[in-house]
Amino acid sequence: MQFHLDGFRPGDPSIADATAALPPTAPDRPLPDHVDVLIVGSGPTGLTLASQLAAFPDLSLCLAEAKPGPLQLGQADGIACRTMEMFQAFGFADRVLKEAYWVNETVFWKPDPDAPHHIRRSDRIQDVEDGLSEMPHVILNQARVHDFYLELMRHSPSGLVPHYGRRLLDVDLGRTTDHHVAATFERSDGTTETVRARYVVGCDGARSQVRRSIGRELVGDAANHAWGVMDVLAVTDFPDIRFKCIIHSSEGNIIVIPREGGYLVRIYVELGKLRDDERVHSRDITVEQLIAAANRVFAPYTVQVEEVAWWSVYEIGQRLCDRFDDVLVDDVPQRLPRVFIAGDACHTHSPKAGQGMNVSMRDGFNLGWKLASVLRRQCRPEILHSYSEERRAVAKQLIDFDRELSAMMGARPKMSADDAEGVDPIVFQQYFQQHGRFTAGVATQYRPSTLTGGDAHQHLAAGFLIGTRFHSAPVVRLADARPMQLGHVITADGRWRLFAFADAPAPDDPESRLAALCRLLSDDPRSPVVRFTPTGADGDVVFDVRAVLQQSHRSLTIRDVPTLLRPTKGRFGLVDHEKVFCPDLVHGPDIFELRGVDRADGALVLVRPDQHVAHVLPLDAFEELFSFFDAFMLEPG
Amino acid sequence: MQFHLDGFRPGDPSIADATAALPPTAPDRPLPDHVDVLIVGSGPTGLTLASQLAAFPDLSLCLAEAKPGPLQLGQADGIACRTMEMFQAFGFADRVLKEAYWVNETVFWKPDPDAPHHIRRSDRIQDVEDGLSEMPHVILNQARVHDFYLELMRHSPSGLVPHYGRRLLDVDLGRTTDHHVAATFERSDGTTETVRARYVVGCDGARSQVRRSIGRELVGDAANHAWGVMDVLAVTDFPDIRFKCIIHSSEGNIIVIPREGGYLVRIYVELGKLRDDERVHSRDITVEQLIAAANRVFAPYTVQVEEVAWWSVYEIGQRLCDRFDDVLVDDVPQRLPRVFIAGDACHTHSPKAGQGMNVSMRDGFNLGWKLASVLRRQCRPEILHSYSEERRAVAKQLIDFDRELSAMMGARPKMSADDAEGVDPIVFQQYFQQHGRFTAGVATQYRPSTLTGGDAHQHLAAGFLIGTRFHSAPVVRLADARPMQLGHVITADGRWRLFAFADAPAPDDPESRLAALCRLLSDDPRSPVVRFTPTGADGDVVFDVRAVLQQSHRSLTIRDVPTLLRPTKGRFGLVDHEKVFCPDLVHGPDIFELRGVDRADGALVLVRPDQHVAHVLPLDAFEELFSFFDAFMLEPG
Repeated sequence: MQFHLDGFRPGDPSIADATAALPPTAPDRPLPDHVDVLIVGSGPTGLTLASQLAAFPDLSLCLAEAKPGPLQLGQADGIACRTMEMFQAFGFADRVLKEAYWVNETVFWKPDPDAPHHIRRSDRIQDVEDGLSEMPHVILNQARVHDFYLELMRHSPSGLVPHYGRRLLDVDLGRTTDHHVAATFERSDGTTETVRARYVVGCDGARSQVRRSIGRELVGDAANHAWGVMDVLAVTDFPDIRFKCIIHSSEGNIIVIPREGGYLVRIYVELGKLRDDERVHSRDITVEQLIAAANRVFAPYTVQVEEVAWWSVYEIGQRLCDRFDDVLVDDVPQRLPRVFIAGDACHTHSPKAGQGMNVSMRDGFNLGWKLASVLRRQCRPEILHSYSEERRAVAKQLIDFDRELSAMMGARPKMSADDAEGVDPIVFQQYFQQHGRFTAGVATQYRPSTLTGGDAHQHLAAGFLIGTRFHSAPVVRLADARPMQLGHVITADGRWRLFAFADAPAPDDPESRLAALCRLLSDDPRSPVVRFTPTGADGDVVFDVRAVLQQSHRSLTIRDVPTLLRPTKGRFGLVDHEKVFCPDLVHGPDIFELRGVDRADGALVLVRPDQHVAHVLPLDAFEELFSFFDAFMLEPG
Repeated sequence: MQFHLDGFRPGDPSIADATAALPPTAPDRPLPDHVDVLIVGSGPTGLTLASQLAAFPDLSLCLAEAKPGPLQLGQADGIACRTMEMFQAFGFADRVLKEAYWVNETVFWKPDPDAPHHIRRSDRIQDVEDGLSEMPHVILNQARVHDFYLELMRHSPSGLVPHYGRRLLDVDLGRTTDHHVAATFERSDGTTETVRARYVVGCDGARSQVRRSIGRELVGDAANHAWGVMDVLAVTDFPDIRFKCIIHSSEGNIIVIPREGGYLVRIYVELGKLRDDERVHSRDITVEQLIAAANRVFAPYTVQVEEVAWWSVYEIGQRLCDRFDDVLVDDVPQRLPRVFIAGDACHTHSPKAGQGMNVSMRDGFNLGWKLASVLRRQCRPEILHSYSEERRAVAKQLIDFDRELSAMMGARPKMSADDAEGVDPIVFQQYFQQHGRFTAGVATQYRPSTLTGGDAHQHLAAGFLIGTRFHSAPVVRLADARPMQLGHVITADGRWRLFAFADAPAPDDPESRLAALCRLLSDDPRSPVVRFTPTGADGDVVFDVRAVLQQSHRSLTIRDVPTLLRPTKGRFGLVDHEKVFCPDLVHGPDIFELRGVDRADGALVLVRPDQHVAHVLPLDAFEELFSFFDAFMLEPG
């Protein structure tokens, strides 16, 4: 898709009428008195969380935003592979794929040794290593990601629409009735409204009022390096303007991020070190200065800016909260969290690694299913402690990485062998490549906990690393021979997936351990499926059991698999034919081979609603299976 | 996507609120007095044509429909690979891919020799051969295809919305003013309205009033075979219910077409021969009878129908008009057509081969760009004769094929070697396989004409067969290393594509014939790009010149290609970086290899706005290139 040729325009580029392209605004309504979850802030973190919760019409929600309406411009734009996998679960990855710029390769430029004030291309690498994800790394205006979430929420069973123009004054943890927290908002006309909520989540950014209300602080480095950023339409003779480029020059450093639509480009320009306590805004930098600085770096090439769609200056600082909820460390055993903070409200860092929006949205995804399953009485409320534990560790890693990367990006390139202060662009490039899995978002691994098992049986499925996200692979669906990605059956519906990779015998063989597992899951009173599924509900509303067989899909039919894998559902008792898969033995690769699944014994891979692998077990480890879920799930009461 | 579990519901399945899922209705407006094109009928043919024309805001259009509102249910559902390629050009193939059932394999059933009243699986084949198209064969409710077209039109520069509730009374060819044709419509309240149009297109179905007005007739076989069809939600032990199945039994024949959403299935049931002049409606067949007949065929399996979403009975007849416009054969040299008929209005056939809707939509695609380019004075009006010539030949082929296939589908299966009347299911299966390219829609080949060149240079690009649709292949875009399908640059925007496959030298080599061609196209006063592009317009508004190089995309930059291939456009003079491609030398296949393009000489492949290959020429065949376009294009006046 090509667009923005005659100037940047917000909204859906496939709609000719600019007004119709913007998301519809809802009539103003008063805030509700009581809700299950109050989300403060409708940035990417709040929208991810709200979209997850909106899947459950039995939950009452409120999404309050201080700004007067939806975002239309600027801010973050990088979408990591892992985030695309999450968008797939939410059902709009295809729309992002269609509209976004794809980061296929990254190009490195450094000073030309023969003309040190000119830059020269030093190397070019594949941006994402082959096989890391079925999704590419893409770039898209954050406002469009918001649009997709807003549409998803509007179309969801909850029909959720944000309340705009609500500035949070305070969250009062003391003033509770019925275990509710009271949050007070001010409108632009000065009137106030109070919402009582069972849970409050602050997705309200680096200056979070929710964070302040629970007495937490962002702690970390003082900002010391200033950068400018601009989204521009420009004419240039720089040959790599449609590649992501990292440019180290004697005049400063630049990151080039091509943008969606074929014409727009984002340019990050280094503006040098700040003095202690100096703020970049005090320098009164203009966009003309940014453009001039960019041209000094690009020399001998020139960049003639025709339109600036958005620009900003900012300083880098890496800051982190000690916990992401309202419970003190010592109180964890006896208190349950009621207030959470997520995204920039609890961790801030530079945009250099393109991680901020990505990690923040995944905060929301982590918290969403947990809140839903506690509110819907499927899980014990103690699992809510895991949000801060899991996501703070991720944020800490990011901040450490960002500190190193930012220092390297901000440094002068080494101009000679005896230049001790400069950074060798080759060393930078190596660092960048080594951390490819991290920046793609697939390196996150949650530590063993109630929700994440130990590695005693990891060898049965080496490619599904416990604690990391389920790494999708191609399969063929048994009932209709459809080639597809196995991971795409994980939709953001709050369900647990039990992927049973079959042992060697066919599923109708009396020796089949897969069949034995299915019988047990269907019939044993201690089976989690039996215990935790509400009476009268479809059998897969809590646990979605799927199987991957070893045989060709042509050698079996759907009638050859245990009934658990072709369940009857809904008011007519129709059969769900989409639970069983086979390797693609014709076109390959074979998922058993690709993910290192044991062909003799098979493996049971438990996957959380947020796509992370919770455990790997033998198909016949019934006791371990029972006790894993017993630890945190509740029988319907 | 899974949906319809608790009953069929029309509209967008991703929207929870059933009312919001339906397309918006526009307030009623009077018909316009004068338009460039009046389209009668908003079925798939009329919608394809209207969507093509709606891309041009300088054309005035009216789309009139007799029904009171958009279709919500039933009718055609098969979408051939070729049609998906066309949907890609219209920009909504991705939405169809997401929502539709994919026909991956076809299963054949026949009487069990050991128990002749029972059926038994006889074979299973891949439905579409590998490499035939980058698109699959899919099944989706026709109403959803309508929805996508309606949205496309609403979002187009024209913002076109149909006028519903308008029954055509007559088209008066005599009563013209300023070369306009007058069409009179009646509304439900009995009032009439008249629209004067430069062109009228009848997409008004088998009982077309437009056809009657121009005195044409559908001629062909009397209907002699009755079939029933039903879309049902059912419980069954038939193991292949999620496969397309062709079942020949001693009790009659059935075609099973699984439908979108995972639960719905369409069943075509043979109802036996009709007596001469008998109409199937006279038999008063009920859906209960259909279900009973289906169960006799399925034995020993049973199909318990829980909900019937839609059903119908019909008789097969193959009928065709002698011409698809208002010009008599003898008048062609001296008269130009003003009224056209398309789709069922000029050819009818059975739904057995899943071709009706597909061929009809492609009628609309064929006519659309021709009408637009004549109305916009880019082409001589004589090209309008080619619509009837090209599309009638396609319809004739389809009817011949359908007659054979229907006879075989309607026949009893041969029960023994000396059964002379029955059809051997193996013979049927062979026939079905042999015609795979035809049913996929990719076998259509227009004969040499003004718009379609001869085959003197076909050997330069054997895989781009002149007259057939441009067969897409994977490439890597030079400017940003994006892997993509080359054919997907052909959008439904009325432009001609000139794909220049480079000769062996790199484009910056003085020997490069590609570079010489680009210089000529840019500068020579006889160049079609120079002659036929309006002054002041972007250089690619009429001819979209693209190149495919032989070198790796890593060995060149966008600055190494001729300026014609990196044109400046729009009000800012921004560079369009998306004109040049390279083979994917890492992952393969190499497009030069795959499509048999001559590596020494390269080739110039001319592609019409409807994706059909118009000509293959040597890169330096300047005179032939000039004269090809001179024959039908007009200089802007």
